[in-house]
Amino acid sequence: MSATADHVIKCRAAVAWEAGKPLVIEEVEVAPPQAHEVRLKILFTALCHTDVYFWEAKGQTPLFPRIFGHEAGGIVESVGEGVTELQPGDHVLPVFTGECGECRHCKSEESNMCDLLRINTDRGAMISDGNTRFSKNGQPIYHFVGTSTFSEYTVVHAGCVAKINPAAPLDKVCILSCGICTGLGATLNVAKPKKGSSVAIFGLGAVGLAAAEGARIAGAARIIGVDLNTSRFEQAKKFGVNEFVNPKDHDKPVQEVIAEMTGGGVDRSVECTGSIQAMISAFECVHDGWGVAVLVGVPNKDDAFKTNPVNFLNERTLKGTFYGNYKPRTDLPSVVEKYMNKELELEKFITHSVPFSEINKAFDYMLNGQSIRCIIRMED
Amino acid sequence: MSATADHVIKCRAAVAWEAGKPLVIEEVEVAPPQAHEVRLKILFTALCHTDVYFWEAKGQTPLFPRIFGHEAGGIVESVGEGVTELQPGDHVLPVFTGECGECRHCKSEESNMCDLLRINTDRGAMISDGNTRFSKNGQPIYHFVGTSTFSEYTVVHAGCVAKINPAAPLDKVCILSCGICTGLGATLNVAKPKKGSSVAIFGLGAVGLAAAEGARIAGAARIIGVDLNTSRFEQAKKFGVNEFVNPKDHDKPVQEVIAEMTGGGVDRSVECTGSIQAMISAFECVHDGWGVAVLVGVPNKDDAFKTNPVNFLNERTLKGTFYGNYKPRTDLPSVVEKYMNKELELEKFITHSVPFSEINKAFDYMLNGQSIRCIIRMED
Ligand SMILES: NC(=O)c1ccc[n+]([C@@H]2O[C@H](COP(=O)([O-])OP(=O)(O)OC[C@H]3O[C@@H](n4cnc5c(N)ncnc54)[C@H](O)[C@@H]3O)[C@@H](O)[C@H]2O)c1
Ligand SMILES: NC(=O)c1ccc[n+]([C@@H]2O[C@H](COP(=O)([O-])OP(=O)(O)OC[C@H]3O[C@@H](n4cnc5c(N)ncnc54)[C@H](O)[C@@H]3O)[C@@H](O)[C@H]2O)c1
Ligand SMILES: [Zn+2]
Ligand SMILES: [Zn+2]
Ligand SMILES: [Zn+2]
Ligand SMILES: [Zn+2]
Repeated sequence: MSATADHVIKCRAAVAWEAGKPLVIEEVEVAPPQAHEVRLKILFTALCHTDVYFWEAKGQTPLFPRIFGHEAGGIVESVGEGVTELQPGDHVLPVFTGECGECRHCKSEESNMCDLLRINTDRGAMISDGNTRFSKNGQPIYHFVGTSTFSEYTVVHAGCVAKINPAAPLDKVCILSCGICTGLGATLNVAKPKKGSSVAIFGLGAVGLAAAEGARIAGAARIIGVDLNTSRFEQAKKFGVNEFVNPKDHDKPVQEVIAEMTGGGVDRSVECTGSIQAMISAFECVHDGWGVAVLVGVPNKDDAFKTNPVNFLNERTLKGTFYGNYKPRTDLPSVVEKYMNKELELEKFITHSVPFSEINKAFDYMLNGQSIRCIIRMED
Repeated sequence: MSATADHVIKCRAAVAWEAGKPLVIEEVEVAPPQAHEVRLKILFTALCHTDVYFWEAKGQTPLFPRIFGHEAGGIVESVGEGVTELQPGDHVLPVFTGECGECRHCKSEESNMCDLLRINTDRGAMISDGNTRFSKNGQPIYHFVGTSTFSEYTVVHAGCVAKINPAAPLDKVCILSCGICTGLGATLNVAKPKKGSSVAIFGLGAVGLAAAEGARIAGAARIIGVDLNTSRFEQAKKFGVNEFVNPKDHDKPVQEVIAEMTGGGVDRSVECTGSIQAMISAFECVHDGWGVAVLVGVPNKDDAFKTNPVNFLNERTLKGTFYGNYKPRTDLPSVVEKYMNKELELEKFITHSVPFSEINKAFDYMLNGQSIRCIIRMED
């Protein structure tokens, strides 16, 4: 039992007080974990575009003040009642979608959409009692997707925590807790391209580049990267992307450009942008007869996916995934081992690193399209 | 070589002169088959809803005068140059989607969308020369989906003809050339329900009942039939359908009714209606995490499939199929054998039978929702 267990911890957190306004580093109070919860000391966190959407709150429900952050690595500080699989000192990755182990989804081989702990972007409090564990001077501060890792300490449901090899460097493997597993799994677990096939990747941020890495690992011959930002193309070559299309360079829809490049369409596509137009293009650019498209990007809440139903009748398949269909507690430790065995490179995804006090720079890097992933060092 | 080969044949055909007007039995001229074509003597044909849509031409491109019909059985009368796999006297089923054997689709295990011979509802002439083989007093009469079986003789591309066991009764197996294979294959080849699972079937016509039969064969425990016409429900019990929903009986969308009946949605759904609203409901009623929906119905040409993209992100899959993904020449002979071995019952699909002279009655039976399949006896 650590000295801090059972006590409220005062620590620094980056609080989003208002939509789109810079985060403010504040001293906040973090309550002890309740039953089935754990309190984590976060050591490294990174910024994912999903944080940015809900912080901007343009196409999403606003909920403020809130502590964002969901791609992180840390160490268990204390555990609540009934937590048996984790103990203080364990090295862990918190994940935005959990695994209760008991529900139909957790028992299904196909799904990672746990009934209890699946992603819920509108919930701002803990499941057990509907209260927040964060406050400042008595004012509650909302959680984000059950993780809120932009804080030196955070409280998370134990089902959302993957225990990993303590030898794994948390400043690298932290990015497995969202973007990299999401993209990699979208390709390897869901799109499943065959050796020698063609794959289009829409969006060459961390998620898309991880999807491209999955296509490379699967032996795809043609990996076509699609992005509105041409400056993404050079670095994408390191991830196996070997052809590039910027939709802005063409008068016709990008799905037609891709169909022409490939004699009718790609075998697989993976959409990693969050743009509804890209989702439609990613579907319509797959070959009839056998093409499979996978949606990964988080859409605006009022977006509608719209296509001619004949595109389905012509034997195309459309799927979507959260977290690349990985079950966080069951599957994540083995993905960490892939990094440890050098079967998976993570360093090339990490383009920037800032101390916690400069967390707003990470937002700038993402909004400018400069960074793939920016690591935020909590202890600096 | 038959006495008629190389000659124009004069015979009776049911010509649709105008959209929605009763067919007229006329004496027409049927030209000899050109290279890679065969001329068939049709013995039995049935009416499928696809014929009705293009005859009504409400949501489809009108093309008249035209000879409809695409579910049929017959005998090869003569063959054109270069036809080596068929000869006069062979018992055959013409199919609206063909198999050239050479293209990427024909060589793919997944697709039956032959580049050369796939369904084309707007084409009214033969592929080789763009001319029709039907005429009356010199006026060309258009073909329909390459089959035009509402004629005593018709000319078809050899790649659209499945040679079958000559012992098979053509008045029964003729319905395998469209509706029954389409529904059966949509379930067995595309939706692939597991033993013990739940399946919703939208539309309880011949195609939907064949899809239900597929679910029964696959061992589905719950087969939920959805139709706007309650009179369909009693006969559907013979096809394994064991629960029924009429969307008209409910205030809320049918996908919500089904979600409530099944604790979140069915494992699989197969849409066999042609209604865009049913297509959307069939997709949205499958369970998140693992649900798969398959579209079969032929939509109106301006219909748009529209859903919230989060329905995909929540790990649902949407596919579509023509002809249940069966390759006509490769797969159809073995489906006929299933009937011969009593593994597949066809009699229960055949509710009506009329002589050729009364073909318009078959249209009435379908439009009134009375028939499953009505056989049209060409020689009576
Ligand atoms: N489903 C999940 O589990 C899951 C998990 C993590 C992230 N996401 C989502 O994945 C997406 C990518 O995240 P990221 O962190 O890599 O973001 P990012 O901002 O680093 O990358 C997105 C890229 O998409 C490009 N883009 C935007 N609109 C485009 C369009 N119409 N066509 C082509 N390219 C376009 C941008 O230029 C950018 O390079 C986001 O929508 C994020 O919310 C989903
Ligand atoms: N994809 C293919 O290869 C293929 C092949 C054959 C037929 N089809 C199509 O399959 C569909 C069914 O053909 P069929 O011959 O069985 O037709 P049918 O008319 O015998 O049966 C259709 C049934 O759907 C019901 N229906 C209509 N709208 C509905 C709705 N909104 N909700 C619930 N039920 C509804 C009708 O009441 C009817 O019972 C048609 O659209 C046809 O064009 C497709
Ligand atoms: Zn993320
Ligand atoms: Zn669960
Ligand atoms: Zn048909
Ligand atoms: Zn072919």
